[in-house]
Order: sequence, then structure tokens, then C-alpha cells
Amino acid sequence: MAIRAAVFDVFGTVVDWRGGVAAEMAAAFRAKDVDHDAAAFADAWRGEYQPAMERIRTGARGYARLDDLHRENLDIVLKARGLDGLFDAAERDALNHAWEHLPPWPDSVAGLAAIRERMPVATCSNGSISLMVALARFGGLVWDAVLGAEIAQGFKPDPKVYRASAAALGLAPDEVVMVASHNRDLAAARAAGLATAFVARPDEKGPGLGESRPESDWEFAADDLIDLSRRLG
Amino acid sequence: MAIRAAVFDVFGTVVDWRGGVAAEMAAAFRAKDVDHDAAAFADAWRGEYQPAMERIRTGARGYARLDDLHRENLDIVLKARGLDGLFDAAERDALNHAWEHLPPWPDSVAGLAAIRERMPVATCSNGSISLMVALARFGGLVWDAVLGAEIAQGFKPDPKVYRASAAALGLAPDEVVMVASHNRDLAAARAAGLATAFVARPDEKGPGLGESRPESDWEFAADDLIDLSRRLG
Repeated sequence: MAIRAAVFDVFGTVVDWRGGVAAEMAAAFRAKDVDHDAAAFADAWRGEYQPAMERIRTGARGYARLDDLHRENLDIVLKARGLDGLFDAAERDALNHAWEHLPPWPDSVAGLAAIRERMPVATCSNGSISLMVALARFGGLVWDAVLGAEIAQGFKPDPKVYRASAAALGLAPDEVVMVASHNRDLAAARAAGLATAFVARPDEKGPGLGESRPESDWEFAADDLIDLSRRLG
Repeated sequence: MAIRAAVFDVFGTVVDWRGGVAAEMAAAFRAKDVDHDAAAFADAWRGEYQPAMERIRTGARGYARLDDLHRENLDIVLKARGLDGLFDAAERDALNHAWEHLPPWPDSVAGLAAIRERMPVATCSNGSISLMVALARFGGLVWDAVLGAEIAQGFKPDPKVYRASAAALGLAPDEVVMVASHNRDLAAARAAGLATAFVARPDEKGPGLGESRPESDWEFAADDLIDLSRRLG
């Protein structure tokens, strides 16, 4: 099996969504003189992510960009946490851009660049194209193409998202490796025919609360993206 | 009107398709000890481009990637030029990759990078995603996203291609400038609501045979992409 391209999960695998969102929310709470746990808020916001996508995956709702789901989920979380009156609609729209300002993990820029020297690299994220573009420009990431949810009009782990991403690169699924720090993402990618690479992000959901170990015999398993670049090489 | 992103025609505007295809064909003819005008062959191959897309634009045929149209057109041109027996199917498949090996114009890499410092840059080409990825990697071009025909499932000058490219960037059409060396492309982009920038490529179709002048009051007109980066800045 010759791997000819690599596609990447982004939230958690390449960028630190929790740290980035918590930092933006902490600043927003400070500006309002409100004392609220920003990291817990980030966790709650992210907690609405799967249920919102699930309504689309099941067909109960047509495809909507993740940006719109994030904005709806922000309303839900503010209300649930007793913060409903704190931010007006324009402020909420601005807060939603927190998802465009997520710091790459320390190894991400160099690791991705090293992999890109060997083969095309593309996103295979549930984020929209514009969100991926904004994140890449914020963090200094360079992608050869932005693929994933929006081109497939669906959300992972729907197999069509992985397959559409490989097809867009002009490749068969087994010529493409899916890179993710989530075992569930890799299981779905493998079921769709892709090769798989696990990257440990042990602190993704807070210190020690990320996935640190491969739970299956993925083709590759790496400590970070620099380590993965060596293993793919 | 604030321009927040730039989308680019690629064949002719960013890369020299004629020079690139002619060089690959010249090598292929030499390898077969055949004396044939490689530049004229490139012109004939490109000559089949619009008719092939027109069948899709009119709905007579479903969307097919430009790579497949190029491959079909190669058969047509070889036959028309009395070269039908010269290359077998595998050799023709290999020759079709000529369209992935097109040199950027001398100003393209630096001009595009300068524009990218100011705003996101994306392709809005009739080429497929995989073709755009291959061209960018061959020429050292960096795009924020590969948009255009394949995400819209149609071909320029169909307005949906321009609009889908702006929408994928999360922008209104008039927040995006279409950059092209073809007045017809810009007229269609303007009709779709985009801002327009003409770049002179006077030698695109052979010495002195490209478009050297804007034929309308496009928002921007430039001598090359470095010049355009200054005008946009």
C-alpha cells in the first residue's frame, strides 16, 4: 500500500480548540467583569458539537456549516450556564469567531510542513472551508487543499466525508492516510477504506483528558506530527 | 467596497499552459523520433477545451472533471493530427499529466505570496481540485483554498462557479475579487457580483497572442501579479 496523500482532522489533532476557546472566553468574561470558568465554558460549547451534527447525519436536518452550528450552540450554552443576558447578538457573532483563533499544538506547523514535503496534505475536518482557511492563516498552517465536511455536505464519521476527500485528491481511499487524535474518527476512516494514523493529544480536553493511546492496529501511531512525519517518510 | 479575498483563474493567468504542454509534448515526440510542432499541438489540445466544457454547461452532459475532458480531447487531437497510432493508452494517460506540469509565469509565485499576506487567496479555475493541487506543488504556489469548478460542479463562465467560490470563503460576492487574464472570465465574474482584476498575459497563446488590455472598466488592471499586489494593497 503506497500512501500518496495525508488528510487531517483539525480540532484537537492540529489545533488546541480548548485552550483557544477558553482564552477568548476568558477575555470576554473579563471585559464584562464576570467571574466564570472559561475552560468549563469551552468544554460545554464543544459538548454541543456532536448532538448538533448528529441531527444532520441522521437526515433530520439538511447540511449546515459548522460555523452556524457553533453559533446556535453558543446560545444554548449561555442559557444553560445562566449567562443569557450577558452578550447581545453582535457580541455573540464576534465570540463565534473564537473557533477561528485556535493555536496549533507546538509541533503542528513544523510537522505538517515536513509531511507536506513528501505528499499533499489536506484538511478532513467537520469545519467549513472558511473556518479552515481562517484557522490556517491564524496559525501559519499550510494546506494543499481544504476538503472534508463542506465538499461532502455531511459530517464525519459519515463515510462519504472521508471518501469525498480522497476522491477530490484523485486518489483511491487506500492511497490516503487519515490523521487524527480520535480513535473513533480513525475507525470510521478505516471503514471508508482509508489508511489511518493516530496522533496522541493527551491534553486535548484538559490535562490528561485527551486520547493518549491507539485503540486499534492503525497503520501508524505517533507521539506528535513531527514524529508522524518521520514514520511516514 | 472592501475586498476581503482574491480568487484566481489559473490556466493562462497564473501558469503558462502553452509553454508547459508544448515542452512535455516536444519531449514525447522526440522520444518517438517524430517531428511534430509541439506548440501547435498544445494549441489544438487547448482548442478542444471550450467545446468539451460547453456540453456540460448546457446540460447535455453531467459534470466531469477537467482531467477527464483533457484525456478525451487528447484522443481527438491525436487523431485529427494524424498521430493516432503514436501513443498507446498508458502513454496517453501519462501525457495527460502534462497539465499538472505547467510553469508559473515569472511573477506568479512572488505576486501571489504578496497578495496572500493581505488576504486569503484561492483558485477559481475550471481545473479539478487534484489538478490544482498538483500544479501548485509543481510550481511552488501557495493557496489558502482550492475552489472553482469542482466544488460548484460546473464550469466558468457559469455564474454558480464564481458564487460558490465566494460563498465557500464565507463572503458576499462583492467582497471577493476575481483575478484573470481573460476579459470574458471577468465579465462573467462581474455578472455574478464579484469585483474584477485584469492581469495582462500578452504571450499566453504564443508571442503577442494573449490578452494585453482590459476591455472594460474592471476594478483593477495590472501588468502582472506583483503589480496587482501593489494595487490591491
